[in-house]
Amino acid sequence: MEEEVPGAMGTSASLALRLGQIIFSTASLLFMCMGVEFYSYTAFCFLVTVMGLVIPWSLTLVLVDAYSVFVKCLPHQPRILMVITLGDWVLSFLSLAAASSTASVTDLLLDVGSTFCPAKLCSRYQLSAAMAFLSWFLSFASALFNLWLFPSL
Amino acid sequence: MEEEVPGAMGTSASLALRLGQIIFSTASLLFMCMGVEFYSYTAFCFLVTVMGLVIPWSLTLVLVDAYSVFVKCLPHQPRILMVITLGDWVLSFLSLAAASSTASVTDLLLDVGSTFCPAKLCSRYQLSAAMAFLSWFLSFASALFNLWLFPSL
Repeated sequence: MEEEVPGAMGTSASLALRLGQIIFSTASLLFMCMGVEFYSYTAFCFLVTVMGLVIPWSLTLVLVDAYSVFVKCLPHQPRILMVITLGDWVLSFLSLAAASSTASVTDLLLDVGSTFCPAKLCSRYQLSAAMAFLSWFLSFASALFNLWLFPSL
Repeated sequence: MEEEVPGAMGTSASLALRLGQIIFSTASLLFMCMGVEFYSYTAFCFLVTVMGLVIPWSLTLVLVDAYSVFVKCLPHQPRILMVITLGDWVLSFLSLAAASSTASVTDLLLDVGSTFCPAKLCSRYQLSAAMAFLSWFLSFASALFNLWLFPSL
């Protein structure tokens, strides 16, 4: 029963999804923060905040998954799984909102002209938005797999 | 069995959700389109496109729900329900992305100054974004309730 849903908590597919989330959200945060001006736009601050929430969340869960895969298979406890699924959903919606805000603001800055956004900075904002979209996609996959596990509990 | 999940296809709660989606997405579209300059920003075009998809989708489903509530209870067919749930999910993600893009672009336009966005237009963009968020919330609720119905089929 623990192995029924691939991608749910404690399987190796879940471990891979979490690792991907960590990589993409860290990349998104770095691309955004290495520029100095991110705090002057609300959307970029929002992205930094959300990524700052996603990284510790995924780090915690990657440890749980790694323990479950390599050391000892942990049993599924409905209450803990519910908290994890809820957290995944909330973070996945927040990261979608942050990614699309960043993408649209970057697009607008490109249109308005180079006074607001030198070409080098703008391409980094775009990369950051792309990484945030990838991170959203993976965290949505995790949330969906965990939700799928519910009826079998 | 058809009445097991409140809010799933064919119940009166679902009818109310769909009506709310139509009202909020139409309001969002009108607030955006009555201004003349929406096509000069990518995010606003995206919002108009998404709302133009949400309105006919909800209109179709509100007819199905109304028929099911007032005339004759329709049986749940897994294949049709799957298509409806999938469409709900896709549209709910698109409308969240559109709403947050619109909100962040409006916020940026307010910061940049009144040359880009007269006060009257900007408050209408904000209203439009708020309506889009409400429409997202309702369509997310519909998608969740329909997904919940799956295991019982």
